[in-house]
Amino acid sequence: MKLWQNNNEKTDTTIQKLVEDFTIGEDKIWDLYLAESDVKGSIAHTTMLKDIGLISEKDLATIHEGLNDILISIQKGEFKIDESVEDVHSQIEIMLTEKIGDIGKKIHAGRSRNDQSLLDIKLFIKEEIKTIVKKIEPVFEKLLFLSEKHKADLLPGYTHFQLAMPSSFGLWFGAYAESLSDDLELLTAAYNVADKNPLGSGAGYGSSFPLNRAQTTDLLDFKTMNYNVVYAQMTRGKVEKVTAMGLSGIASTLTKLATDVCLYMNQNFGFISFPDELTTGSSIMPHKKNPDIFELIRAKCNRIQALPNELTILTNNLPSGYHRDMQLTKECLFPAIITLKECLDMLLVMLENIVIKKDILQDEKYLNLFTVEEVNKLVLQGIPFRDAYLEISKRVKNNTFETNVLEVNHTHEGSMGNLCNTEISELFKEQLKRFK
Amino acid sequence: MKLWQNNNEKTDTTIQKLVEDFTIGEDKIWDLYLAESDVKGSIAHTTMLKDIGLISEKDLATIHEGLNDILISIQKGEFKIDESVEDVHSQIEIMLTEKIGDIGKKIHAGRSRNDQSLLDIKLFIKEEIKTIVKKIEPVFEKLLFLSEKHKADLLPGYTHFQLAMPSSFGLWFGAYAESLSDDLELLTAAYNVADKNPLGSGAGYGSSFPLNRAQTTDLLDFKTMNYNVVYAQMTRGKVEKVTAMGLSGIASTLTKLATDVCLYMNQNFGFISFPDELTTGSSIMPHKKNPDIFELIRAKCNRIQALPNELTILTNNLPSGYHRDMQLTKECLFPAIITLKECLDMLLVMLENIVIKKDILQDEKYLNLFTVEEVNKLVLQGIPFRDAYLEISKRVKNNTFETNVLEVNHTHEGSMGNLCNTEISELFKEQLKRFK
Amino acid sequence: MKLWQNNNEKTDTTIQKLVEDFTIGEDKIWDLYLAESDVKGSIAHTTMLKDIGLISEKDLATIHEGLNDILISIQKGEFKIDESVEDVHSQIEIMLTEKIGDIGKKIHAGRSRNDQSLLDIKLFIKEEIKTIVKKIEPVFEKLLFLSEKHKADLLPGYTHFQLAMPSSFGLWFGAYAESLSDDLELLTAAYNVADKNPLGSGAGYGSSFPLNRAQTTDLLDFKTMNYNVVYAQMTRGKVEKVTAMGLSGIASTLTKLATDVCLYMNQNFGFISFPDELTTGSSIMPHKKNPDIFELIRAKCNRIQALPNELTILTNNLPSGYHRDMQLTKECLFPAIITLKECLDMLLVMLENIVIKKDILQDEKYLNLFTVEEVNKLVLQGIPFRDAYLEISKRVKNNTFETNVLEVNHTHEGSMGNLCNTEISELFKEQLKRFK
Amino acid sequence: MKLWQNNNEKTDTTIQKLVEDFTIGEDKIWDLYLAESDVKGSIAHTTMLKDIGLISEKDLATIHEGLNDILISIQKGEFKIDESVEDVHSQIEIMLTEKIGDIGKKIHAGRSRNDQSLLDIKLFIKEEIKTIVKKIEPVFEKLLFLSEKHKADLLPGYTHFQLAMPSSFGLWFGAYAESLSDDLELLTAAYNVADKNPLGSGAGYGSSFPLNRAQTTDLLDFKTMNYNVVYAQMTRGKVEKVTAMGLSGIASTLTKLATDVCLYMNQNFGFISFPDELTTGSSIMPHKKNPDIFELIRAKCNRIQALPNELTILTNNLPSGYHRDMQLTKECLFPAIITLKECLDMLLVMLENIVIKKDILQDEKYLNLFTVEEVNKLVLQGIPFRDAYLEISKRVKNNTFETNVLEVNHTHEGSMGNLCNTEISELFKEQLKRFK
Repeated sequence: MKLWQNNNEKTDTTIQKLVEDFTIGEDKIWDLYLAESDVKGSIAHTTMLKDIGLISEKDLATIHEGLNDILISIQKGEFKIDESVEDVHSQIEIMLTEKIGDIGKKIHAGRSRNDQSLLDIKLFIKEEIKTIVKKIEPVFEKLLFLSEKHKADLLPGYTHFQLAMPSSFGLWFGAYAESLSDDLELLTAAYNVADKNPLGSGAGYGSSFPLNRAQTTDLLDFKTMNYNVVYAQMTRGKVEKVTAMGLSGIASTLTKLATDVCLYMNQNFGFISFPDELTTGSSIMPHKKNPDIFELIRAKCNRIQALPNELTILTNNLPSGYHRDMQLTKECLFPAIITLKECLDMLLVMLENIVIKKDILQDEKYLNLFTVEEVNKLVLQGIPFRDAYLEISKRVKNNTFETNVLEVNHTHEGSMGNLCNTEISELFKEQLKRFK
Repeated sequence: MKLWQNNNEKTDTTIQKLVEDFTIGEDKIWDLYLAESDVKGSIAHTTMLKDIGLISEKDLATIHEGLNDILISIQKGEFKIDESVEDVHSQIEIMLTEKIGDIGKKIHAGRSRNDQSLLDIKLFIKEEIKTIVKKIEPVFEKLLFLSEKHKADLLPGYTHFQLAMPSSFGLWFGAYAESLSDDLELLTAAYNVADKNPLGSGAGYGSSFPLNRAQTTDLLDFKTMNYNVVYAQMTRGKVEKVTAMGLSGIASTLTKLATDVCLYMNQNFGFISFPDELTTGSSIMPHKKNPDIFELIRAKCNRIQALPNELTILTNNLPSGYHRDMQLTKECLFPAIITLKECLDMLLVMLENIVIKKDILQDEKYLNLFTVEEVNKLVLQGIPFRDAYLEISKRVKNNTFETNVLEVNHTHEGSMGNLCNTEISELFKEQLKRFK
Repeated sequence: MKLWQNNNEKTDTTIQKLVEDFTIGEDKIWDLYLAESDVKGSIAHTTMLKDIGLISEKDLATIHEGLNDILISIQKGEFKIDESVEDVHSQIEIMLTEKIGDIGKKIHAGRSRNDQSLLDIKLFIKEEIKTIVKKIEPVFEKLLFLSEKHKADLLPGYTHFQLAMPSSFGLWFGAYAESLSDDLELLTAAYNVADKNPLGSGAGYGSSFPLNRAQTTDLLDFKTMNYNVVYAQMTRGKVEKVTAMGLSGIASTLTKLATDVCLYMNQNFGFISFPDELTTGSSIMPHKKNPDIFELIRAKCNRIQALPNELTILTNNLPSGYHRDMQLTKECLFPAIITLKECLDMLLVMLENIVIKKDILQDEKYLNLFTVEEVNKLVLQGIPFRDAYLEISKRVKNNTFETNVLEVNHTHEGSMGNLCNTEISELFKEQLKRFK
Repeated sequence: MKLWQNNNEKTDTTIQKLVEDFTIGEDKIWDLYLAESDVKGSIAHTTMLKDIGLISEKDLATIHEGLNDILISIQKGEFKIDESVEDVHSQIEIMLTEKIGDIGKKIHAGRSRNDQSLLDIKLFIKEEIKTIVKKIEPVFEKLLFLSEKHKADLLPGYTHFQLAMPSSFGLWFGAYAESLSDDLELLTAAYNVADKNPLGSGAGYGSSFPLNRAQTTDLLDFKTMNYNVVYAQMTRGKVEKVTAMGLSGIASTLTKLATDVCLYMNQNFGFISFPDELTTGSSIMPHKKNPDIFELIRAKCNRIQALPNELTILTNNLPSGYHRDMQLTKECLFPAIITLKECLDMLLVMLENIVIKKDILQDEKYLNLFTVEEVNKLVLQGIPFRDAYLEISKRVKNNTFETNVLEVNHTHEGSMGNLCNTEISELFKEQLKRFK
């Protein structure tokens, strides 16, 4: 049943069923995630309606009591959208009207489903971004912890996939910590785009009611509002896309880490390993310990990285004004949010169990990693760089290259002898403040 | 339970649960779509194993009886993957072993889950492409029917979104029919890539068993095989991506048609309409009849158009050899297949109910559509084209342009007076033969 | 000639030519854009080298004199990369050495081409983002000016492409102004990712020289540095991708505006027009005034919107450490920067010439736009919203709907009677401060 | 100068210049690639115009003489588009009129720039696809040659990046040959979509001239025509997108091969190498021999893989009828065609110089590759597969696993003992016939 069915005549019910199935699709599944935001939005909206004289103080009390009951049922996980009801907004309004009678009908005044949906989505995105940031935190801390712990454990550094220079697990773990911190820049953009109140923009053209949008902005704890009502409506699709970009930043870091891990677990490298219960066997190869978890982190994060583009294709080249196409942004974005949270949880477990191989660089196949050190030693003895380079180059060619620099002594900021993990940690904490 | 657990020790069951949830994800949902193909593949594989002496004739009969029972339960919709079982392949093997005892264990000889999955996916894709083609057929026929029916109903033709020249509903409907026919080119590519047998490639490095791959190719009705076993494995991800391209071709045509429809239903155009029960109202605007169905066709088809790119991102920059990342191709591709079928069904219903406005071009705002006709008349009188163009141009500027060509007389192939629908229909039928 | 050719033997010169053409490609074209940044980077780097004792004060003076000469030639547009020279970094070092002799060779100490390129790109991106923001400013101002000027000029508002409610040119222009302001969120993220000094990270594994990275961070006016040297290298590809996202935000707004304009210029709408010299004719239709400029703004901005995905595909699934693949980020990103600037310039010209149709809503075909106003009037008279909705719905059905609300009276924040352009302008100015 | 300028008045020349620069952009560069097709199209078109009585036999001779002169100048590389001329079509018409006078103006009758561009693009694409196929051929042959030559040289086979089973260079090279052959499926789709004549569709709404489109279809050697003129216009953007998909198939294979090569050249693998002149050094690491060429093949092919999506974003959600947006398809597609040809040329050079390491599997770290062989031996002795698997599993765990199967004996189709290169070669030759 739709609350705004535009005809009462008998229609071919088969077709009606087909149309409803097609138009609703899996929308109700994703609408459930908006239930809490929807109720909170209605509480703020009706408070404002009372203050501008559209609802009496008494009615408001009744409405809020009813809405709070519904909120509790949502938080208990008992809330459902009935088979016959179109969406979460209708369901809540119907439940409210069942509870408190016709007064319930008043809550939709000065509001359209368009700004209501938008509001719900923005409140939801704000919450979810904060949750994701909370899940990034322990991963960041664990990476920094591992960086400190393994700062003396060397590792070959590669460029062009070729042996290049000595690196360390300290650098490697720390790099991903700093990467996550830097990824908060994009997530901040997403948070800020979401942190503007669209309520009161109606169907995108405002309302003849004397709404007080500043009040709902305050009540709902938005930083500011989407002023222009036409623009408010334009943020539908946009806030989802920018959020997808924010997620994709984190996902990109996780993909790279997973790629490294899959490589380093390979027997030709053998730099790291995990306990058996965190690897997977093969149906035909009894010796296999596969890095399935990291392959799936990579794959899941790659799907997330494809999301901004999907939302671009979904929402692009449409003129201003709402289009039903926007309904599908939920089924694009929401699963990605869930997946990213799962990947962060899983990654934390993996990092807690990672095992590092010691003394990797003792193997003489890694000798050439130290050519730059030797070049630099010559430079410090006063030989111009290009000449020092040519000299060491010749030794490598003649197989006369030797080194005794197994103790690599790097001291500048961010180098393996001076990881600056404290500074990185401070930057990260500074970033966290943006998601108050 | 996994059939190839690589350790028996007690493990932390919480972590094991977490790992299983993460690695299996929603894979089992999509695996169900492969159940039928999996059994058919096992029937063919075991027939071949018997012929090369690895299974006795008696055992084969027992195995086939068991597999056929399972096949029936699948076709009845009774088949399920148990909570404790990892995937469809394991489920079927376990069910078989429960039915017929240890003989059931023999069916996995000479096979890996890798070639088994690949086989299932290719068989499934072949079936689904054929189903999609079957659903395209009535849409194509309906479009041609409408083209013929409305061949005399004129419509403004636009270029650059600007009034250009007269067009007709005959041309408009027919164009989309021909488009669907041309889209079968890409779908043919997908079908052909799928129509090569990967069975026998094992985990991508073949088998020491003396398998007869030509025999399973025949039994499973493949056109040929993926010969090289390393290449066979490379088709994982590739066949899904090429199929996604095939789907996206159709989706692109549907998106364009839906865009046209949403425009033509707009009151500033008003060229077409649909019965009330096929449009949607608004929660705040009582006069609305929204084209939600076409907006959703467009949106759903846009998600499908984003799919090839998603699969590229998912599968790209990986070296040869199977990676677990590939598991996620199912949850990308399979929903798109389902959605495209739904869109085709829905579109057919809409086309059966479309209402065309008559005599659109009688409105004098469309007068300028006929300037090219007048230019051409001057040309046929012997005036060089560029001069005729300047003359008519001057009339338009001076508001002296007139025309009496309301009866547009185009005669060449594919023009509004000579739609060539028969030829288009023949081309289409020729294309259909590729999906035998 | 390459400065670090790793062999002196004669090689097949044909192959060498082929390899050089293939590996250099169009890289030198884009490297030119980095010349200024490269010199500035070298000035800062050598100042620091002097302070840590690697270059004498006297040599530094000589080096800076040489570099400043080169800088002037760059700013005069006289700088070129010779046919035989590989890249901008080599060209500048060669020119310097020609000018001042062997002292010039010292500038590469403690630096790799990797951190040098990264530095150049980040300095360049920071400059370009600031330039783009400077070009957004007058467009924003013009949009707000038009919004104020046309605040009383009504326009139909559409949802689902269907007539919905009254809107105004005030809302329409203002919406795009606010959109540009909100787009600065993403651009801020890009700016912030670029605003971290990578210099000193070498080839991604630091240096044995006692570099003072804090000093170059200061000298080059970075907010902070990419501490971890492995992470610093990871920002290659990442800073370009995040910048592409920042550009795509602006591009998305321009695409939408262009789509609206193309629609509104269509004769079925006829809401706006442009002088002849800003439209285009047709080779066969003498009456055409095509919106080519907006079609091309849309198209160019759509290419920009495709860019983040292209960079994802280019840089994804690669392990940590530099890969030559990164070279191509320049030829992806730099043209997009140029194009976006051109689009902003062109848009400004167009907005300066836009002509608005007056009294659009006097046409009775727009009557139904006012149903919501009438519903709301009933609500304000005390009738519950849902009942009012049904009453007006009935009138529309019976063709008895009338209205006298041609003076739409919306008063809340952001509505057509209260555009809040001042508030929008303040938000924008606040955002501008981020790009100091 | 534009041939169809729609006004003669003086206009602000600065603005006119700005508009022309913006609208023409780099279009003329890419238009040059269409010059030959454009002339050929005009020769066919005018032949037909003569046959339907619109041009006299004598004029036709004059026109053809003029066009052939232009064709020769194009083939000699002397053809240019003048500064003041808008596009290749105008340039050729102007040159013709300069040569033969007013008769030259007649060639545009019954044609629009729309169908003319479309025709040129389709003719060009057909030629380019054939050229690409010709460049795939020697790469395919070289791969098969290397496969045969190295069929006895073993290599570790990996799954999940983990050591899995023995593979061979025979399999590895052969896999990429077969992959290229399979990629021709998508390229066939592209070729077939291009192989339909759009000429005569005008601006997308046909012509009042009695054109004979079957004749030009024959003269221009198209398989059939795009019948419906509205559909013909819809193929603009579509043929480019499908071609991009065809290119991306080949590109995907090259990307994977390049990824493998970069990995195998890594010192931890060390499976293959190239002569010094085909690798690249480092500015700071004297020992480096970097696989830049393959990194760039991968990167360039990744840009090509991003192209179908870019064209989707460029052309999507537009209603039927030409839009100027389409102009940009050339600058998207044409460079990708050029790049793919370069990558194929470069790859051929590299394959001619590849050096294979012998006896890789003698290293005892690869012992576990043979577990499947041992499992299978037990199975062939009558032990059920799952039990054999558990037995070998136990030996691996206890470090008692041994093997003497260094001579891997695989015999089935496509396995390392039976590569089926002849069959693959036959399939390939069969595919080639599609591009006659």
